[in-house]
Amino acid sequence: MPLTRNDLARLDAADPLAGHRDAFDLPEGVIYLDGNSLGAMPRSVPGRMSRTLGTEWRTGLIRSWRGPEGWMTLPHRVGDAIAGLIGAQAGEVVVADSTSVNLFKLLAAALAMRPDRRTILTEADNFPTDIYMAQGLARLLGDRAHLKVAKRADLAASLDDDTAVLTLTHVDYRTAEIHDMAGLTRRAHDKGALVLWDLAHSAGAVPVDLNGAHADLAVGCGYKYLNGGPGAPAYLFVARRHQDELTQPLSGWLGHEAPFAFEPGYRPASGIARALCGTPPVLSLSALEEGVATVAAAGMPALRAKSMALTQRFIELVEQECPGLTLFSPRDAERRGSQVSFRHPRAEAVMEGLIAEGVIGDLRMPDVLRFGFAPLYLRFVDLWDAVAVLKRVATAIDARGAAAS
Amino acid sequence: MPLTRNDLARLDAADPLAGHRDAFDLPEGVIYLDGNSLGAMPRSVPGRMSRTLGTEWRTGLIRSWRGPEGWMTLPHRVGDAIAGLIGAQAGEVVVADSTSVNLFKLLAAALAMRPDRRTILTEADNFPTDIYMAQGLARLLGDRAHLKVAKRADLAASLDDDTAVLTLTHVDYRTAEIHDMAGLTRRAHDKGALVLWDLAHSAGAVPVDLNGAHADLAVGCGYKYLNGGPGAPAYLFVARRHQDELTQPLSGWLGHEAPFAFEPGYRPASGIARALCGTPPVLSLSALEEGVATVAAAGMPALRAKSMALTQRFIELVEQECPGLTLFSPRDAERRGSQVSFRHPRAEAVMEGLIAEGVIGDLRMPDVLRFGFAPLYLRFVDLWDAVAVLKRVATAIDARGAAAS
Repeated sequence: MPLTRNDLARLDAADPLAGHRDAFDLPEGVIYLDGNSLGAMPRSVPGRMSRTLGTEWRTGLIRSWRGPEGWMTLPHRVGDAIAGLIGAQAGEVVVADSTSVNLFKLLAAALAMRPDRRTILTEADNFPTDIYMAQGLARLLGDRAHLKVAKRADLAASLDDDTAVLTLTHVDYRTAEIHDMAGLTRRAHDKGALVLWDLAHSAGAVPVDLNGAHADLAVGCGYKYLNGGPGAPAYLFVARRHQDELTQPLSGWLGHEAPFAFEPGYRPASGIARALCGTPPVLSLSALEEGVATVAAAGMPALRAKSMALTQRFIELVEQECPGLTLFSPRDAERRGSQVSFRHPRAEAVMEGLIAEGVIGDLRMPDVLRFGFAPLYLRFVDLWDAVAVLKRVATAIDARGAAAS
Repeated sequence: MPLTRNDLARLDAADPLAGHRDAFDLPEGVIYLDGNSLGAMPRSVPGRMSRTLGTEWRTGLIRSWRGPEGWMTLPHRVGDAIAGLIGAQAGEVVVADSTSVNLFKLLAAALAMRPDRRTILTEADNFPTDIYMAQGLARLLGDRAHLKVAKRADLAASLDDDTAVLTLTHVDYRTAEIHDMAGLTRRAHDKGALVLWDLAHSAGAVPVDLNGAHADLAVGCGYKYLNGGPGAPAYLFVARRHQDELTQPLSGWLGHEAPFAFEPGYRPASGIARALCGTPPVLSLSALEEGVATVAAAGMPALRAKSMALTQRFIELVEQECPGLTLFSPRDAERRGSQVSFRHPRAEAVMEGLIAEGVIGDLRMPDVLRFGFAPLYLRFVDLWDAVAVLKRVATAIDARGAAAS
């Protein structure tokens, strides 16, 4: 029996997260299936920004750095809020810099923790910037580091006695396939290696249990499912057991034990603060705090349940309505994050057509249409409406292709 | 003949920059002598932030990255605006990351450009985070890099055949003493070394002519005299002649020639873009654009002229009214940036007293009172009013000290 729009409306009526959509200010005429690239704006952000500008910057000026609610505490406060979403404890996560910069810090730290090893192991389909950063570090270190890039299926077998750190993105940015975090971490530990997880496509949509998986290190991004705004600062996790030995090369003053003592030599701060470097972008960081709060308010179990239902229904609908598209994501919802990708031979034209009609997904060249499902603000009927447009656009493009051939 | 408040009021009446004060939203009851730590808020920022939030994030969503006015162009657009303030050309400056992170990138790049040399030379009184970052890089590189820290007077003599890069802060963060940029750059070049200037305490208050000085590399900060807001992103300069050979280790996707091609290998972008790493914090970056515009609107010659007059009158007034304070900055205005520091044996108590009465400067331990003079929004009468409070506070503290001894 084919799915109908009424079936989807019934799912919305029963959705325990339906009310959370009101926490976002969504534009008219758009079905937004790209919350995995840039989350929608929480309604609380303009008010928060008014306070940050008016009370903190304008009136408080330099005085706003200090005090229990001051800007100095923001990286830790927001980090602690994120910790609650990824299976970490307070004091294990801090917000800083960009995901790429944080990856560099922690890859270098991991090599320093395994001084008799030189291999950074990653997978060929890791998010490119993660690979680029590892390449940059390996180039800088010359013969003291070596980047090994393995196929996904060969990862565990590629771990060896020279592997200092295995670095992987938990949820694949194209297919949404989820790595077995606990299993791979155990395999790496069995070989004496550390593991660094990139949670960019996980946090806020897919449950992560860093401490449950006995993870060592992690980084992640603030502007996707955490709804922190364009280019929101990133975060990093260092398991408490590693913090005292953490040596990271971007040893800026905010990672110093006494940043305002202006000592001539760097002394790493105790705890996660030693992973900080320079002064954080407070305006962007304040918006991130609002975004993280939208996720925390819903709770990860409910978000995961809705995310799985959304992606499942979307796959069913696309396969029902658009036979020219081929699923590129895992069919098993347990193995799938919160995006769904399909291949189409004229994907670029299809995505252009979708965006022109207000259905916003994105394209991963050459032929992947990627759709993200932010469970906080998407409705099930949005799936129907998006697929109706997709059907019309793809049918027209397929017809033009047939006519031309 | 002692200076009077009327003398200062007359200077305000004749000040060609007086009208620029209206471009800032200044709090009541405060005389702000810390614009060298965090610039005041331009009046245009809340409106700009409304557009960035409402039009760009809320409505445009992911689409706001693209196009000639899109977020992708912001780091370059703001970089070009800063270039005009520091003697650089369009395409030589880009906004990215923090000053500390940018320093790390360019120090590593400088070592790579001088592969037969290993010394980073700096001065003992450089801003601590600059030293910490060099320490972090040197530690990471082991015997391939060496940090040499010389006294200011010994810098030129410390250049030798192993010096890859001399890195200095143009204006000293405590004394405001200005380095001879052209002279030191020439001395370094004569020895085959590169020079990396930190412009944190210069840009927006002190004229900088990077290309006139034949400078190689520079970094700087957005939140001081550029009025970019708390933790505003930083910038970096790479002279055009070095751009094609620039290899920096934080090789993130935004520095890739084709960031959206998702290629497996890093290929540096042509031009200054290769100095980029991760996604920039757009909200903070948008505010920075407004801040830079306030400086550009005034022009550096007028700003320097007023800055020199402000610091000169402040020194005269303090020496006239507060004999217990000892000048710690150069007396010659040509050698002095836009701050003035004085020493006082009970500096901490004095600064606490000043701040309690709304005169905001800062303290550099153990005994330095530092006052910054942002020529865009300070009036000459503010000097009188600040020194009146300083006299009262210092006199009371000196009296308590005398009574206790």
